[in-house]
Amino acid sequence: MRMPLRVAVAGASGYAGGELLRLLLGHPEVEIGALTAGGNAGTPLGAHQPHLAPLADRTLVETTVEQLAGHDVVFLALPHGHSAEIAARLGQDVLVVDCGADYRLADPAAWQRWYGGEHAGTWPYGLPELPGNRDKLRGARRIAVPGCYPTVTSIALAPALAAGLITPEVVVVAASGTSGAGKSLKPNLLGSEVMGSVSTYAVGGAHRHTPEMTQNLSAVAGRPVSVSFTPLLVPMSRGILATCSAPLAEGASGVREVYQAFCADEPFVHLLPEGSWPATSSTLGANTVHLQVTVDADAGRLVVVGAEDNLTKGTAGGAVQCMNIALDLPETTGLPTVGVAP
Amino acid sequence: MRMPLRVAVAGASGYAGGELLRLLLGHPEVEIGALTAGGNAGTPLGAHQPHLAPLADRTLVETTVEQLAGHDVVFLALPHGHSAEIAARLGQDVLVVDCGADYRLADPAAWQRWYGGEHAGTWPYGLPELPGNRDKLRGARRIAVPGCYPTVTSIALAPALAAGLITPEVVVVAASGTSGAGKSLKPNLLGSEVMGSVSTYAVGGAHRHTPEMTQNLSAVAGRPVSVSFTPLLVPMSRGILATCSAPLAEGASGVREVYQAFCADEPFVHLLPEGSWPATSSTLGANTVHLQVTVDADAGRLVVVGAEDNLTKGTAGGAVQCMNIALDLPETTGLPTVGVAP
Amino acid sequence: MRMPLRVAVAGASGYAGGELLRLLLGHPEVEIGALTAGGNAGTPLGAHQPHLAPLADRTLVETTVEQLAGHDVVFLALPHGHSAEIAARLGQDVLVVDCGADYRLADPAAWQRWYGGEHAGTWPYGLPELPGNRDKLRGARRIAVPGCYPTVTSIALAPALAAGLITPEVVVVAASGTSGAGKSLKPNLLGSEVMGSVSTYAVGGAHRHTPEMTQNLSAVAGRPVSVSFTPLLVPMSRGILATCSAPLAEGASGVREVYQAFCADEPFVHLLPEGSWPATSSTLGANTVHLQVTVDADAGRLVVVGAEDNLTKGTAGGAVQCMNIALDLPETTGLPTVGVAP
Amino acid sequence: MRMPLRVAVAGASGYAGGELLRLLLGHPEVEIGALTAGGNAGTPLGAHQPHLAPLADRTLVETTVEQLAGHDVVFLALPHGHSAEIAARLGQDVLVVDCGADYRLADPAAWQRWYGGEHAGTWPYGLPELPGNRDKLRGARRIAVPGCYPTVTSIALAPALAAGLITPEVVVVAASGTSGAGKSLKPNLLGSEVMGSVSTYAVGGAHRHTPEMTQNLSAVAGRPVSVSFTPLLVPMSRGILATCSAPLAEGASGVREVYQAFCADEPFVHLLPEGSWPATSSTLGANTVHLQVTVDADAGRLVVVGAEDNLTKGTAGGAVQCMNIALDLPETTGLPTVGVAP
Repeated sequence: MRMPLRVAVAGASGYAGGELLRLLLGHPEVEIGALTAGGNAGTPLGAHQPHLAPLADRTLVETTVEQLAGHDVVFLALPHGHSAEIAARLGQDVLVVDCGADYRLADPAAWQRWYGGEHAGTWPYGLPELPGNRDKLRGARRIAVPGCYPTVTSIALAPALAAGLITPEVVVVAASGTSGAGKSLKPNLLGSEVMGSVSTYAVGGAHRHTPEMTQNLSAVAGRPVSVSFTPLLVPMSRGILATCSAPLAEGASGVREVYQAFCADEPFVHLLPEGSWPATSSTLGANTVHLQVTVDADAGRLVVVGAEDNLTKGTAGGAVQCMNIALDLPETTGLPTVGVAP
Repeated sequence: MRMPLRVAVAGASGYAGGELLRLLLGHPEVEIGALTAGGNAGTPLGAHQPHLAPLADRTLVETTVEQLAGHDVVFLALPHGHSAEIAARLGQDVLVVDCGADYRLADPAAWQRWYGGEHAGTWPYGLPELPGNRDKLRGARRIAVPGCYPTVTSIALAPALAAGLITPEVVVVAASGTSGAGKSLKPNLLGSEVMGSVSTYAVGGAHRHTPEMTQNLSAVAGRPVSVSFTPLLVPMSRGILATCSAPLAEGASGVREVYQAFCADEPFVHLLPEGSWPATSSTLGANTVHLQVTVDADAGRLVVVGAEDNLTKGTAGGAVQCMNIALDLPETTGLPTVGVAP
Repeated sequence: MRMPLRVAVAGASGYAGGELLRLLLGHPEVEIGALTAGGNAGTPLGAHQPHLAPLADRTLVETTVEQLAGHDVVFLALPHGHSAEIAARLGQDVLVVDCGADYRLADPAAWQRWYGGEHAGTWPYGLPELPGNRDKLRGARRIAVPGCYPTVTSIALAPALAAGLITPEVVVVAASGTSGAGKSLKPNLLGSEVMGSVSTYAVGGAHRHTPEMTQNLSAVAGRPVSVSFTPLLVPMSRGILATCSAPLAEGASGVREVYQAFCADEPFVHLLPEGSWPATSSTLGANTVHLQVTVDADAGRLVVVGAEDNLTKGTAGGAVQCMNIALDLPETTGLPTVGVAP
Repeated sequence: MRMPLRVAVAGASGYAGGELLRLLLGHPEVEIGALTAGGNAGTPLGAHQPHLAPLADRTLVETTVEQLAGHDVVFLALPHGHSAEIAARLGQDVLVVDCGADYRLADPAAWQRWYGGEHAGTWPYGLPELPGNRDKLRGARRIAVPGCYPTVTSIALAPALAAGLITPEVVVVAASGTSGAGKSLKPNLLGSEVMGSVSTYAVGGAHRHTPEMTQNLSAVAGRPVSVSFTPLLVPMSRGILATCSAPLAEGASGVREVYQAFCADEPFVHLLPEGSWPATSSTLGANTVHLQVTVDADAGRLVVVGAEDNLTKGTAGGAVQCMNIALDLPETTGLPTVGVAP
């Protein structure tokens, strides 16, 4: 038996931090070390994550380099813009997995436009399902975990773009549960407001995940892809259902075969049988994306629908998957592939 | 004081029938007559619609021409294909408002393709907000109420198509509550399945409301419009949020002005202030559509989002609005414009 | 036609204020005057209450006596402890209806224990369904609207206590939607926390509505009643379902007749047919309480279940009902008795 | 490495069957054998349990003794009354774990009254947390898994009854998600009906779990216990929150110590820190019960609140826990103790 990996989680009182801990508690190679927080430092984890009963009495400590040093792996689940300073001071032998946006974008101008401030840099992008990415993650010690929307939409559209089935003008409408917005105390996230209601926000290309999708899809297509993205807020805690479509390319054929070939090798991407369509509940708590694809002959469009749990495959599960790859563990270690349903 | 209108509702134990009765109970010119049902005939209405307390003891009678005769207005809320036989035998002076699909489509071939069987015919289309429709409804004695999805999407896109702001290839992704599927005993409509989950169905142009949208939008545009339509099922009882987009036409401008002009004269269509986006809860139980519109400059698309209550403006409220117009009552009589929120 | 009543609402950006305005917009004798707020003063109502479209452009003003003066009726929907100062400076001819707790309790010691600070006083208690209350409300110019839990539980248990059917040790477990907690920015009220979860709070007699229930029930029983009250928070926006039970008194009989007699004269209390049990959806948006009662012979207890909408009959609807009584309007004016369901 | 246990699940297309398979897929000592069904036999499991992706292509076979024979363990998740015939024909060396009610009650008269028909018999009762039960389960080859309500309420009240803290007249109001009713196609279980609504049913001692609670609690107390039980149906798929109270016994003291002592040795029962109250989401998908207890001094009652996932600890997780005990595996093998939240 090898020594367990000692793992710290920065931002342990938030939703991404909680999901990381839920998964790490079931990971056989891991020992949970420091749990850090901002304003919640000094309080027990149980006050913020009552579902994590085995860790209820652990005290949250301040998010500092000192607390995070001395671990084999550090997961950062911090607000955007807070990762760079910490990461710079952690040793290059420590695996740092950032669940924030700081190191996702390659283009400093895009960072500047969408997030403002100085661009921290670019780390290997933690979406192993995209062509070439898995190799770059092996042995990496710095990894940028994708956003929740880019994860499912990039996986949904990559096969079609790589195979030239569609022209590069995609339309994405993705319905998300509220946990994607984090534990933010905003009126529009109150239960009274979200239950019984669907709404939209950041319409018309205003969502910060748009440049990330554009970056991913353009890389796969080998040419610029325009993305019209509309996020919907729906009354559930977890889950994203992304409806992705684009005009069929001339002579496009073999759609299902393209997707079957893509999914055959991916342990966490499941192509549903023909006639079945994804539901987010089937992926709840699992590190999976469920896909289905069809052709709308009348409208001349390919339509791909993907479902994921935004906190699992869309954040924390993807992060643990990347840790497994980086540290040469079997990629599926400790990661559920079965949703909690109904 | 004039004599009250005597109104019958066929299909009173279903969701559309229940919503008709809720509105008719608040309509000052109406007296509620026969309430008919299929398998539920002989039972009290209260057993099926416990919210309609004032009518709890009324007994449902069989849906027959004899029961429906002798009323000034007959609302039909029956399964598709059941309206024609009854309507044919009701007098031409009786106002028959059909909430089913039987008389919505003008093209018999479209009917044949999407619904099968013989086409019953075409009645004046009960969406007064589309150009020219209101005049055709005045004095009409047969009216076909639109489907719930076509109501909100046609209203959302009509101004842009009429003004030439977009090219005629529209993409619609619309999230609906479960009541749109009626009181059908299907496993996928069970509470355990729908709560905490978003799913999709009838993807790729397979939904029967597609030809109705195509018909409406092509009429407004004056040329064929292709519609890529994907419906989502979301965990709430009522409400539709439709995200509609299309490529901007060359030289398109004055988007907001076009929508302001359209909404100015419509008592039930409300353009939200800039920066606000529709939420279905704001329209719950109200006969209204809330709209917002923007331009996605990067993607070169116009995006319009519309919200409605599928049972109110999308079905029963639209039906009562049409009755008001047909019978020369003030169009807004008895129809709430304020949602029940939060 | 008489002059409309000029009505002001203090606290118009909150949930109780919003519900007051929803109902007042449908009240035929009312003209809506000043809308006041605390921190939201200076912003348009539409930013906080997007469902109140007809009032979207009205600007919220500061909650001051100057703004509220000059109206026939002033509804106060303010945090506890803020009503007294304003009420003291409004003329005695103005009808002031307080939706807060300040004037509900008769016993200064109870006020001190449960709310702290000085007791403002006691106003006529706005629950007309309790014996003797309706008469006290006629012509009143100061009215204290009951809390949401006390409304439904007092109505549910009053008939049994008045008729001596039960011994005075009642157990109440009441499940409430989240709007009962107001628009408070607390983590446990976030949609992500409440959806898919039932929790409890203020267990063991710690909820501030306990002394109010005790006061009401003891008055009806004519002797001290002990109340064991446990509130549940359930994943919906609106509604309370209260399960109330107590040991049967010796020789208790005629249970159903007692409840039938009570409900016969009450326009807003509906006894369901035998075999049917209340559901909150049947009362959504309506000023009604739905009741059912039974005897558990094995356990020797009477069980009464009551449903209401906490914002309508439980707050704003009850307030408007009191206004109607105080000003000698028909008690049911402008108040819906039909829920919005499903 | 020992040989895996070969396990069959009868009733694999239902909710209990699905949850058994979700847990068994994560159990390291188990190999999944026959999956049987009634009307769904012949179809793939994936059509009914899309979340169980690794088993999607497995075909359901008829529920017959022949299909179930040849396994080490057979879980029965069948409608009440269907287990006896099958169990009688499976070898005495096969571990049969019945998730139905057939073998739970000791008293044939109670069976007759509550379920009707002939009493099949009584098996060791699969609630190891009750005094003496764990020993009876070791080595057992027939086990009756408790009902979902009796599981949490028995665990919540057993410590107080065993320690003589309360008098034996308990009141239980328990709010349950809809999956407790199974995948039944009934109108009141449709999503449209349950979302946004709390209702009640089987009030006044009419629920079949009442005699099971009475049996358990009377055994613990050593004298007859009367149980007043009211179940609530709340808008979520999974979870039960049980509010249990009873009059304090004279001289009762040391309440918290009693519960601490009880929970200290139970791997799946978690006493929350003082001031925290259970939420069902904290137990979602986990084989745990979360408890909190307090004294209501004014009302003179002890109040205990317990939360569980009705499908996990309340059914399938409890069944797997019993299998572990019966077969001398570590009791916690393969059973999550961490909920999926938020």
